[in-house]
Amino acid sequence: MRDVVSEICLPDKVLVFDTTLRDGEQTPGVSFTVNEKKIIAERLAKLGVNIIEAGMPVVSKGEEKAIREIVKLGLNTEICALTRTNLKEIDLAIDCGVDRVHTFIATSDLHLKEKLKMTREQALNSAVEAVSYTKEHGLKVEFSAEDATRSDLNFLKEIYGEVGKAGVNVINIPDTVGCTTPRAYAYLTKQLMSVVKSDVIISVHTHNDFNLAVANSLAAVEMGAKQIHVAVNGIGERAGNASLEEAVMSLIALYGISTSIKTEHIFETSKLIENLSGIKIPPNKAIVGDNAFRHESGIHAHAVLVDPRTYEPITPEVIGRKRSEQEISLSSIVVGKHTGRHSLKAKLDGYGYIYSNEQFEEIMRRIKELGDKGKNVTDIDLQVIADDIIGRVSEEEQFLKLKELLVVTGLHITPTATVRIEVGQEEKLVSDMGVGPVDAACNALQKAVKAFGEISLVEYNLEAITGGTEALGFVTVKIKDHKNKFYIARAANEDIVSASVQALINAVNRKLAYDKNQKSL
Amino acid sequence: MRDVVSEICLPDKVLVFDTTLRDGEQTPGVSFTVNEKKIIAERLAKLGVNIIEAGMPVVSKGEEKAIREIVKLGLNTEICALTRTNLKEIDLAIDCGVDRVHTFIATSDLHLKEKLKMTREQALNSAVEAVSYTKEHGLKVEFSAEDATRSDLNFLKEIYGEVGKAGVNVINIPDTVGCTTPRAYAYLTKQLMSVVKSDVIISVHTHNDFNLAVANSLAAVEMGAKQIHVAVNGIGERAGNASLEEAVMSLIALYGISTSIKTEHIFETSKLIENLSGIKIPPNKAIVGDNAFRHESGIHAHAVLVDPRTYEPITPEVIGRKRSEQEISLSSIVVGKHTGRHSLKAKLDGYGYIYSNEQFEEIMRRIKELGDKGKNVTDIDLQVIADDIIGRVSEEEQFLKLKELLVVTGLHITPTATVRIEVGQEEKLVSDMGVGPVDAACNALQKAVKAFGEISLVEYNLEAITGGTEALGFVTVKIKDHKNKFYIARAANEDIVSASVQALINAVNRKLAYDKNQKSL
Repeated sequence: MRDVVSEICLPDKVLVFDTTLRDGEQTPGVSFTVNEKKIIAERLAKLGVNIIEAGMPVVSKGEEKAIREIVKLGLNTEICALTRTNLKEIDLAIDCGVDRVHTFIATSDLHLKEKLKMTREQALNSAVEAVSYTKEHGLKVEFSAEDATRSDLNFLKEIYGEVGKAGVNVINIPDTVGCTTPRAYAYLTKQLMSVVKSDVIISVHTHNDFNLAVANSLAAVEMGAKQIHVAVNGIGERAGNASLEEAVMSLIALYGISTSIKTEHIFETSKLIENLSGIKIPPNKAIVGDNAFRHESGIHAHAVLVDPRTYEPITPEVIGRKRSEQEISLSSIVVGKHTGRHSLKAKLDGYGYIYSNEQFEEIMRRIKELGDKGKNVTDIDLQVIADDIIGRVSEEEQFLKLKELLVVTGLHITPTATVRIEVGQEEKLVSDMGVGPVDAACNALQKAVKAFGEISLVEYNLEAITGGTEALGFVTVKIKDHKNKFYIARAANEDIVSASVQALINAVNRKLAYDKNQKSL
Repeated sequence: MRDVVSEICLPDKVLVFDTTLRDGEQTPGVSFTVNEKKIIAERLAKLGVNIIEAGMPVVSKGEEKAIREIVKLGLNTEICALTRTNLKEIDLAIDCGVDRVHTFIATSDLHLKEKLKMTREQALNSAVEAVSYTKEHGLKVEFSAEDATRSDLNFLKEIYGEVGKAGVNVINIPDTVGCTTPRAYAYLTKQLMSVVKSDVIISVHTHNDFNLAVANSLAAVEMGAKQIHVAVNGIGERAGNASLEEAVMSLIALYGISTSIKTEHIFETSKLIENLSGIKIPPNKAIVGDNAFRHESGIHAHAVLVDPRTYEPITPEVIGRKRSEQEISLSSIVVGKHTGRHSLKAKLDGYGYIYSNEQFEEIMRRIKELGDKGKNVTDIDLQVIADDIIGRVSEEEQFLKLKELLVVTGLHITPTATVRIEVGQEEKLVSDMGVGPVDAACNALQKAVKAFGEISLVEYNLEAITGGTEALGFVTVKIKDHKNKFYIARAANEDIVSASVQALINAVNRKLAYDKNQKSL
């Protein structure tokens, strides 16, 4: 075993740089509202991440606004913005009030030639200029050589060495296309550490195209990298980034390395991101998946009853969840029709929600409604309802509202729906048929909103997250507009047909809100 | 780079041992029928896996039957059965006609003490006896020291060394609890290679509790392991096993190691397992997820148009899929209302389906029905329908059949349903209310089937896999019986309420079929 230990150089502590709001939001179809981004930033701060990458200001007015609002929250966490090595973009980031600028330029010959049409020398000069400029303005600066794992090693050493001399605080090594292996990435890390002073932090940013993102990050940490880029639930471009929960729990449980993460908040944070992004956690996902602490074979289940350590590497309580399928049904009954305003407020504040009075009243009403129907309202129900109401586009941006709905379906019946919606100041009443009840309702709805441009539904998903058929159904829809831009929206209701129609309305509202915010690039 | 290469010892070729039907089926809630297992085995053979672990015969009469039937298929693939180191279990495996016995006993002190109540010596003797016994009967034998990664290294060397002397063909090193790291696992592999002759194949079996299963397998291969245990889509106990598609594509694309896998069949095999297991592939899953080849940020999308290599490590065609969101809508229109019987038969045979005449007629009818409604029927629609019909419990095991259904719902309406079902020879007509249309229908259904014992619905999921609201809705339900055994079943219909009711009926039928098959342990 001594042979293994001598090869590595573990740091005592690793910094967690969360990019859920930046690379995570680049997940196809995911588009957080400004309000959602604030909720997520608050939760990430509560979870204890060291740095929040809040976005790339140049992307859109909406993205810029979100970064400014997150800065204003005054969280106990460093806020970072992403920029290209472009001084105007850096000015914009500085103006947003962030603590750190993360600036990048591609260094692989493929990217230089096909994407940037630049020489190596031009890229090098641009990088050094951007780092110096940011330092002059008194901010922390982190530099990434995009596509590092496919760049020429000598050029990488040169560019990282030069930004090191220019005063960079952190050098980040992105495996942009997710094509490296742990051994190769460890080697690269070691090589690049040698070109900067020991007070420069080495950081890693990995992608999951071969499901090696976490393993690659850990391999770099073994060589002394002291910061990891992660996203909650591993969302991000293509197959996503290294997942926060997997990387952090590996560092803690497999290496004994400390982080600032309060692990008992991992599960609730993961659920929040699942709800707001619409990207479902698969049951066989490590750490946070439904099956992570379930045991199916008789041999396993029996042994776990005797001693859970026989088939479990960590206990579920460490990350704030309970064991196995009892998780949901045992979750404490916290609210119901007798719930007082005080206890509801305390609960919502405890979860870090930010809400208006109107939103609070609507949550209260929905909770009481469920209680009246005899349903036990669990913590998870509460979160679903709160996420649904608070996460929605804001009141003034709801152009469309559902006022009436009637649907009939069955075997040997043509599904038929009547929909009455409010569009701005007008009301529209339309009926239509379809191959199913949701299709019928949506056909009617689409007739009514044609004036806002063609939209088409490309994905539809429904789940009853809290158990049986009387549970809240959570519908996720993905629509596409004529510019091929996707919008994901969700709605919760114990009637799946109503939930489906509401989700579609939310998606259309989200598209209209986005169109309004979208001014630049 | 020479420093890195000198540390490793890559084999030219790695054998793929697929355990989708064994460890994969141990995923909580997953229970394949005998017919489904045959379909899966045929597809795995078409994909080109070297060894199929078909099951553990002692588990149940149904499992034993499935193994016997798979052996009878005469596939061009080695068939293996799992046993404890128990001679009666080995006799049963031999009697099933398999080519290889995979026998295991736990070796960690924790498992020996808490689970087996055995000494190390007893475990060692049992292992050697099992290996010798299997060899005497002329079968190949593979031995696993369960929980190897938490076992004493000296004891592991002793037990693997002794089974080596007893003539074992393959020694497999299970990371049963998924708690090792690539570096540690590589070390362990190297140590254990040294105690057996060079003609003994070293194999690895990893679990994904920290999402390191693929990375750990690759680390062992770097040391010379020549066989990997994998499951399609990474299903398996808890967070699952190393996924076939990720491990194989990593070997090929990152290491240049050859396997016998025909990669162009990876995507269709992955979709089959998704459909039959009910375990959804998340969009951000490597290789086979919806987003694996999608690009969201403007910078990425633009560059990929110029040259896909800028942001893609492999092309989607390699694994038999098309690029990005066009995947589904571009999928060839193969069948419709003018489709002839010959072309449909050719399509189904091409996909490796095994079907009865009645099943063929039902597929034909459903395809024509969709075509009549003006829908373009794609390859994926065809597969959904075929999986739905062929994968169902067989005709004679369908105790419950839906004959009539009427559902009314909407805003300000109490959802109400009327259901008429055939139960054996009887008909039952029941109506009930609910919080939503599915709840109302299911309440009515549950009233009608109470005689078969209490069942409760614990999970419900619906997706429109083929696009918009006129698409086929695919409903997955998970029910629990009074013994806390789970059953997952699916149904496809363009009306989600009808699909929901049919899925529930399928789940109840599956439970009744299972109860009938379940005789031993």
